[in-house]
Amino acid sequence: MKLILAVLQDKDSNRLADALSGKDFKTTKLSTTGGFLKEGNTTLMIGCNDESVDEALDIIRDNCSQREQMVAPISPMGGNADSYIPKPINVEVGGATVFVLPVDSFFQF
Amino acid sequence: MKLILAVLQDKDSNRLADALSGKDFKTTKLSTTGGFLKEGNTTLMIGCNDESVDEALDIIRDNCSQREQMVAPISPMGGNADSYIPKPINVEVGGATVFVLPVDSFFQF
Amino acid sequence: MKLILAVLQDKDSNRLADALSGKDFKTTKLSTTGGFLKEGNTTLMIGCNDESVDEALDIIRDNCSQREQMVAPISPMGGNADSYIPKPINVEVGGATVFVLPVDSFFQF
Ligand code: NI
Ligand code: NI
Ligand code: NI
Repeated sequence: MKLILAVLQDKDSNRLADALSGKDFKTTKLSTTGGFLKEGNTTLMIGCNDESVDEALDIIRDNCSQREQMVAPISPMGGNADSYIPKPINVEVGGATVFVLPVDSFFQF
Repeated sequence: MKLILAVLQDKDSNRLADALSGKDFKTTKLSTTGGFLKEGNTTLMIGCNDESVDEALDIIRDNCSQREQMVAPISPMGGNADSYIPKPINVEVGGATVFVLPVDSFFQF
Repeated sequence: MKLILAVLQDKDSNRLADALSGKDFKTTKLSTTGGFLKEGNTTLMIGCNDESVDEALDIIRDNCSQREQMVAPISPMGGNADSYIPKPINVEVGGATVFVLPVDSFFQF
């Protein structure tokens, strides 16, 4: 038995939780803020058998890897809005920091 | 030293925290949502000596085991309320998912 | 790799998080309540290399140790406010409960 703690961006957490539960992984979401990742983030606790760790990691990697995203920049305030042509910019989104912890024993009551 | 992480239903968390502190266990409550259990849930972190793990588990089992509860169903909306006789139904409540984690070292400052 | 879980008072958490990030430690803050410490508290998760554990512990000790603080007592309600001279009192603040957990493996995606 292992306990996986995955810290990821809020925006990726529902997709990841759905992908994990679709493969019968049980997850619990902790409310967390700041630190490992720049934006608001979430920590998922995933309990899994030793032989399922690699599958869980694959699902995390597929759903949370850091990637680039084109976003429309906020238009500058007080500028000449008429002549302003927003140019999409590339930002890094996603990413996950993952700890796999050993478990001494596991119970369900 | 062990760190016990117990994921349980919100409704059981105060009773369990009280029962644990009555036996001098120290607990910290994490705000958590969804996953291991169907309803809103809470995660308790319990630090304890190796020789007290079994006592802590007994207290968790006694206060959080899955059990059946008779509840009055919600009366159907828009139905004929006069002729509606609510029949109590049995639902499963409670339950706990418990991980006992090894601890390398422990400090109090 | 180790995962340090430090439970501390809310009032110390920003100072500690800043001190840790100033030394390139990555932290994530969990919303927690009650238990190990009397007042509202916070749990910081700190991932660090084995050889950096002692440095992280020193930073936690320096920023969160239990200490005495002089506080002005709340003036008694309904009393004779004119003749009331508030006498500062000593209270214990701070303190941290710290678990260092072994980590099987660690990933960043
Ligand atoms: Ni793989
Ligand atoms: Ni027993
Ligand atoms: Ni030292």
